[in-house]
Amino acid sequence: MTPKKAMDSHIIMTEIVLPNDTNVHGNLMGGRLMYWMDIAAALSAGKHCNAPVVTASVDNISFENPIRLGNVVHIEAQVSRAFNTSMEIYIRVWGEDHLQQYKYKSNEAYYTFVALDPNKKPRLVPPVLVETEEEKRLFDGALRRRQLRLILGGKLKPEDAEELRALFVKD
Amino acid sequence: MTPKKAMDSHIIMTEIVLPNDTNVHGNLMGGRLMYWMDIAAALSAGKHCNAPVVTASVDNISFENPIRLGNVVHIEAQVSRAFNTSMEIYIRVWGEDHLQQYKYKSNEAYYTFVALDPNKKPRLVPPVLVETEEEKRLFDGALRRRQLRLILGGKLKPEDAEELRALFVKD
Amino acid sequence: MTPKKAMDSHIIMTEIVLPNDTNVHGNLMGGRLMYWMDIAAALSAGKHCNAPVVTASVDNISFENPIRLGNVVHIEAQVSRAFNTSMEIYIRVWGEDHLQQYKYKSNEAYYTFVALDPNKKPRLVPPVLVETEEEKRLFDGALRRRQLRLILGGKLKPEDAEELRALFVKD
Amino acid sequence: MTPKKAMDSHIIMTEIVLPNDTNVHGNLMGGRLMYWMDIAAALSAGKHCNAPVVTASVDNISFENPIRLGNVVHIEAQVSRAFNTSMEIYIRVWGEDHLQQYKYKSNEAYYTFVALDPNKKPRLVPPVLVETEEEKRLFDGALRRRQLRLILGGKLKPEDAEELRALFVKD
Amino acid sequence: MTPKKAMDSHIIMTEIVLPNDTNVHGNLMGGRLMYWMDIAAALSAGKHCNAPVVTASVDNISFENPIRLGNVVHIEAQVSRAFNTSMEIYIRVWGEDHLQQYKYKSNEAYYTFVALDPNKKPRLVPPVLVETEEEKRLFDGALRRRQLRLILGGKLKPEDAEELRALFVKD
Amino acid sequence: MTPKKAMDSHIIMTEIVLPNDTNVHGNLMGGRLMYWMDIAAALSAGKHCNAPVVTASVDNISFENPIRLGNVVHIEAQVSRAFNTSMEIYIRVWGEDHLQQYKYKSNEAYYTFVALDPNKKPRLVPPVLVETEEEKRLFDGALRRRQLRLILGGKLKPEDAEELRALFVKD
Repeated sequence: MTPKKAMDSHIIMTEIVLPNDTNVHGNLMGGRLMYWMDIAAALSAGKHCNAPVVTASVDNISFENPIRLGNVVHIEAQVSRAFNTSMEIYIRVWGEDHLQQYKYKSNEAYYTFVALDPNKKPRLVPPVLVETEEEKRLFDGALRRRQLRLILGGKLKPEDAEELRALFVKD
Repeated sequence: MTPKKAMDSHIIMTEIVLPNDTNVHGNLMGGRLMYWMDIAAALSAGKHCNAPVVTASVDNISFENPIRLGNVVHIEAQVSRAFNTSMEIYIRVWGEDHLQQYKYKSNEAYYTFVALDPNKKPRLVPPVLVETEEEKRLFDGALRRRQLRLILGGKLKPEDAEELRALFVKD
Repeated sequence: MTPKKAMDSHIIMTEIVLPNDTNVHGNLMGGRLMYWMDIAAALSAGKHCNAPVVTASVDNISFENPIRLGNVVHIEAQVSRAFNTSMEIYIRVWGEDHLQQYKYKSNEAYYTFVALDPNKKPRLVPPVLVETEEEKRLFDGALRRRQLRLILGGKLKPEDAEELRALFVKD
Repeated sequence: MTPKKAMDSHIIMTEIVLPNDTNVHGNLMGGRLMYWMDIAAALSAGKHCNAPVVTASVDNISFENPIRLGNVVHIEAQVSRAFNTSMEIYIRVWGEDHLQQYKYKSNEAYYTFVALDPNKKPRLVPPVLVETEEEKRLFDGALRRRQLRLILGGKLKPEDAEELRALFVKD
Repeated sequence: MTPKKAMDSHIIMTEIVLPNDTNVHGNLMGGRLMYWMDIAAALSAGKHCNAPVVTASVDNISFENPIRLGNVVHIEAQVSRAFNTSMEIYIRVWGEDHLQQYKYKSNEAYYTFVALDPNKKPRLVPPVLVETEEEKRLFDGALRRRQLRLILGGKLKPEDAEELRALFVKD
Repeated sequence: MTPKKAMDSHIIMTEIVLPNDTNVHGNLMGGRLMYWMDIAAALSAGKHCNAPVVTASVDNISFENPIRLGNVVHIEAQVSRAFNTSMEIYIRVWGEDHLQQYKYKSNEAYYTFVALDPNKKPRLVPPVLVETEEEKRLFDGALRRRQLRLILGGKLKPEDAEELRALFVKD
């Protein structure tokens, strides 16, 4: 398949934190943010492969800065790498307070989606063509994150994860 | 603080998959499920520590069996271990088709929540008392998962993660 | 049809009261609670008869203790008795304030559901097998409540309602 | 307090059945309808007493004709009688299919609301002034329904419910 | 086609402003109100032509008096005139504060809907029969508003809009 | 006040059409789209003036190409011109079908927002600095659209609207 540029899958979502999105502290609930990130990631993955996609897995997410009621939520998603029938999508989230002119990083995440054919079986997706330094860095790290996912999913033995193993074992 | 039994934080949520919860395949969207799991985990954490809680992180989640429109979603959450001011919550999700009398495991996840004092600073939570074999297994694994979270969050060097390192290095 | 145990239809739903669920007093709106109870009852009825079900009627409901914003709502539903093609479901609701470690009975209700065949005609459901004292009490009371429903629905004359009549006429 | 006309509390709500309001048969869920009826009744009660109100109880409701996806829901509510601090509201619901020019009665219900003072204690409401034949019939029946509510709520003995007793005992 | 009375398409919607409908000032968001007006207009148009309808255009809307959280929203819609396959619907919105017994005009708007046949092509709708003075005034103004819509949509040259032109040119 | 660049108020919102957003044809309801456009416009206006804003008016909107269930909605908003305390925001909407790789213009609109001070009175906003040809064209047209709004709102006589009048009268 013809490779496609990573940036062609770039998606920006902008949301506002409404009362029902908040916890008792008046901050955006983690679950609501994961819901929005899932939609952003699905849109980015669909844009890359032009096929229906489903969430396969979500990597470890840390919630750093809470986003307050009435603040703006910026979500950017872009495919970082493709693995045959799956795509890793890198997502970054910012909060913004227009009144105080203050924009802050909230968190980042990696979602993995699988493309499906009309029989709902996985189908091939185009490889990803990276151009910028950051795209290259994300592309390279994707292999290590994939090994971690496979180990955590019980589909790969730790000793066979070359990339990851190197982090723990200095020869 | 007096330890509290793990099973005292046990929570069951039951939801039904409505049209707006589904993707184009008529299956529950991953993001909607993460939203429900976040609420279930928050309820379980709040029950354990009797304080306001916020989502700190979510571990790698794999979505295995899709849950169909009209099917029932069962979510069980229970605190597996406490670390000073944070709690790891173990969540299991099943789908169920009442017409076909078919109940299936959908996925499982670990969420971490932090308890807050009235000034929104982290506060101590009670230790967890485990009783069953499974509770013990989850309690033991929690340390390894915590090291992984700290490494992924850039707060621990791989070579200092004793528990994890042992998985990669057979001496 | 083979009878099924009452407790096999037991369902637990747990919800949290969000801003949009509240009235101007910051308490859960009665209508939102009836909506959740309807879903809980439908799940319990569907679990008992393994067929599509629809709400046929709801008995008198009293709202006793209001449930506050941010509190937890526990809804338990279980089939109490079957009448050919319909099932009575008994529902109990509690509110819980995790911070104050305070759990309180909010209300209880009886919903009646009808099972449907693929042509949307009523179909037979399994009889209910009761085991505990409480299940037996609910099973016995179901006949009296059914007579009341039929009188209120204009389908039974008061003088023909033996069970109910006994409450008013001491011979 | 100066009595107020029943018809001054008349409220009309019109809704459309959207996908998320339906069960697997594509019909309006009973719980969603009870939610709308609760809001209609609250608006009517608030219009009568000009004070904050809360749902106190709901009488037996029968669901007769299902309302289909895309159909229109008409809800009419009007206070039928006041009892010191509470008001009974009579609600009628119709479905309407604009394409087939078909309007049908779906169900009717009686909700009871209590008016609250700023300390959230019950406060007096104006008596209801009835004018039409139907308003008079509803006003008269309200006493009998109230006795039934009190018996069902355990606050009145069946033998003391004069109005109701007469239905069962022909002297 | 047989003309139909304007008042036969009259629709009343009543809504309550819930937390999620408000902006940071605690007032109903303009967008939420436009959403409700669109549904009210669709119901009125569907009632007039007994066919599926879609929004074709919305005229200039001014938001005058904000409607506060917890207040009641009254929306009245009625077809003002038909043009072959389209209908103009006139909508008026009031807010009401039951506690303060204060009802106020919020805004008014004109929506245009098109009727569709089963192939989703525009189909003829019945002419509108006006009776009251106000209905006549709205009917007459509809032609001028239609010319303005056509000019704004680039489908009519200003110099060909006789009705509108007369407003600017006093001969 | 220091002028601010038009492009600094640029906002992109991306949404997906879910079942509850659609009419009986399976297309995005006009009212839902106006709701999203209102939020996008509010975000853009807030970004320009760094103050709370409220919707003042919406210009004539035509709905051209319907957006289908499951398709992506792209909404771009940018302030086109400021008038003392108000801002006109220009909004463009596209639909996109990822499977068919088909992106289409759906409609465009002009919303006007007013900035408020802490007492909810209108406050001055920065002038808009235009750079591109299109920004200049939108800036120039804003005066004509404003005259039209004032005439439609009854605040300006047609003969005093110089810009508009020129369209109808060729001297």
